[in-house]
Amino acid sequence: MAMSNDKSMRLDPWGTSDIKDYSELFELFGIEPIENLIKKISDPGHYFRRNIIFGHRELGKIMNAIEKNEEYAVMSGIKPTGALHLGSKMTAEEIIYFQSLSKKSKAFYAIADVEAYCDNGLPFSETAEIAVNNLADILALGLEPERAYVYKQSEEIRVMNLALIFSRKVTKNTIEAIYGERPFGLYLSALVQAGDILLPQLEDFGGPKPVLVPVGADQDPHIRLTRDLARKHHNEFKFILPSATYHKLIRSLTGDYKMSKRDPMSLLTLDDPPDLAKKKVMNCYTGGRETISEQKKYGGEPEKCVPYELCLFHFCKGDEKVKEMYQECGQGGRTCGDCKAEIAEIVANFLSEHQRKKRSLIQTAQRLLERD
Amino acid sequence: MAMSNDKSMRLDPWGTSDIKDYSELFELFGIEPIENLIKKISDPGHYFRRNIIFGHRELGKIMNAIEKNEEYAVMSGIKPTGALHLGSKMTAEEIIYFQSLSKKSKAFYAIADVEAYCDNGLPFSETAEIAVNNLADILALGLEPERAYVYKQSEEIRVMNLALIFSRKVTKNTIEAIYGERPFGLYLSALVQAGDILLPQLEDFGGPKPVLVPVGADQDPHIRLTRDLARKHHNEFKFILPSATYHKLIRSLTGDYKMSKRDPMSLLTLDDPPDLAKKKVMNCYTGGRETISEQKKYGGEPEKCVPYELCLFHFCKGDEKVKEMYQECGQGGRTCGDCKAEIAEIVANFLSEHQRKKRSLIQTAQRLLERD
Repeated sequence: MAMSNDKSMRLDPWGTSDIKDYSELFELFGIEPIENLIKKISDPGHYFRRNIIFGHRELGKIMNAIEKNEEYAVMSGIKPTGALHLGSKMTAEEIIYFQSLSKKSKAFYAIADVEAYCDNGLPFSETAEIAVNNLADILALGLEPERAYVYKQSEEIRVMNLALIFSRKVTKNTIEAIYGERPFGLYLSALVQAGDILLPQLEDFGGPKPVLVPVGADQDPHIRLTRDLARKHHNEFKFILPSATYHKLIRSLTGDYKMSKRDPMSLLTLDDPPDLAKKKVMNCYTGGRETISEQKKYGGEPEKCVPYELCLFHFCKGDEKVKEMYQECGQGGRTCGDCKAEIAEIVANFLSEHQRKKRSLIQTAQRLLERD
Repeated sequence: MAMSNDKSMRLDPWGTSDIKDYSELFELFGIEPIENLIKKISDPGHYFRRNIIFGHRELGKIMNAIEKNEEYAVMSGIKPTGALHLGSKMTAEEIIYFQSLSKKSKAFYAIADVEAYCDNGLPFSETAEIAVNNLADILALGLEPERAYVYKQSEEIRVMNLALIFSRKVTKNTIEAIYGERPFGLYLSALVQAGDILLPQLEDFGGPKPVLVPVGADQDPHIRLTRDLARKHHNEFKFILPSATYHKLIRSLTGDYKMSKRDPMSLLTLDDPPDLAKKKVMNCYTGGRETISEQKKYGGEPEKCVPYELCLFHFCKGDEKVKEMYQECGQGGRTCGDCKAEIAEIVANFLSEHQRKKRSLIQTAQRLLERD
């Protein structure tokens, strides 16, 4: 959805949200800017430091729980349809970051295999294998398996029961106001996701507690619906309204916000062989000028550049290094070919190392998924 | 819903359907009259013989399976909110009758405990006890436990997964055309019921087979929706369109079609102490005249009379006895007081005997419900 000044702006969790001005979300939807809270975090991750996580709802509840050494949960979901791409890596690293901040944390991961069946026609036997592979990636990124609950949608009846319970107190008006007019099945998906988000607060998991859901900015409709349902069902479940952080959306390698799994060159995945990943980076849309002489004269435009975004969001650990690249590029001190080659090398090294770690974690992933 | 000549008549599975002219359903909804098929049944039950089951959809599929000694299923559901009333007894006896016709049959019973929680606020701990009690009634009525699969909605994830899958191919238009404009939660209930009806055809239960759903006439919307979904998902599941039989609706003891659990004198349950049941029968709405002399002169009106309906639908085994009562009453040969006392005695005897049998079946009911 293109950004506009129109106050009727609607975020689309199932479509493409090209959100150019994230600050507008503060005013429109009541998302809070992150700046005030970030000072309280002793060791903010790079997503915070680089303002990639730009907003939140009630993150303070989580910070309080950490401070007081009280239980909290952090949750997300993945649809097991293929290799993990960079968008899922970002969410996974947020989960891992918040899991790491306290021994009282628990991470919840929903594997949306029923959705994968409905939307992508993948049978459970196939999604079960993909889920193991995806989870091994998340473990390699740093998920602590001992404080994680990972479950398949097709096996977690408590989530389905919550969806059914919620359906009784959601009106067509509420759901249409949040999502617009949609096929019936997507409304139901939304209720199941609300079930996923509120599952950590059931008695079976120790009862009501703060829960953080790190999401892309386009997923806010799910957060609003879930908070509304948590409020409506407070008497029965004593739900605490879930918190959320919002990150900026990463573009495809071709420079737009529409990720297409049909065009494998348009996105990087954690399963890409390092050499293929290099080729993908070399093919990226950049912020370079038409000619090298123009580039030297006017400088490049790093804010338009996908390889720069790869560094900023994902692959460059040091803030100084990123700042240096940005400045050098803007001052004409970099040419795209050399710059991409440098970044391609960083990406390939990351993937080699990641895939090495991951191979040793496949069995842990299997164990986590077959726990029952 | 009151009957009308208006072709826009809509059956209401969640409300009161006062269907005076059942034959109209043949024309409006394509329900077939039972007469043609009944001749093929070697020993038709009293619901057939007395035209209480007045219609069907594709009952022939079940008759064929019986004839060819092939597998088929018969299914129903109960909402465990209290003692079993006469409406549920009727469905249970139909299930039992069709289960008894072949050793290749299997009876499925869904215990709608999530619905009981949503609609009636009953926690699972409470509905679990009620379900055992209800199931003991059904066993006492004759359900063969070895060829029965009884499950709680809150534990049967396969039904929920089907509901989620179906939700993707059901449009708002289809569901509104069948049910009218309804709260969102009732649409979802309808999809869960479609999941219940199609569960016996999953591979886990031996794959596609004819399935019979005996229902009250007001439940036909669920049957139509489910047949539509079975058709739409034929490629994936090879579903055979489910069959149905339709029975007439029994009135409350006060003579209307609105059963109110809030007024315990308005309906008989299988848990009623025989003496209380006698009182209820003595309080029934009858087809009697204002005075005894009028009754003798004009005769009573058995077609309006609830005690007569109790005999016809439930408590008089012999067709001759029922016919005799009908004729005697119409000719003024019976007074309501004596007649009710006679019927009260029959009802009380039935309940004593039923409750005696039931007590010995509580453990079997527990075992069936805790099978996993």
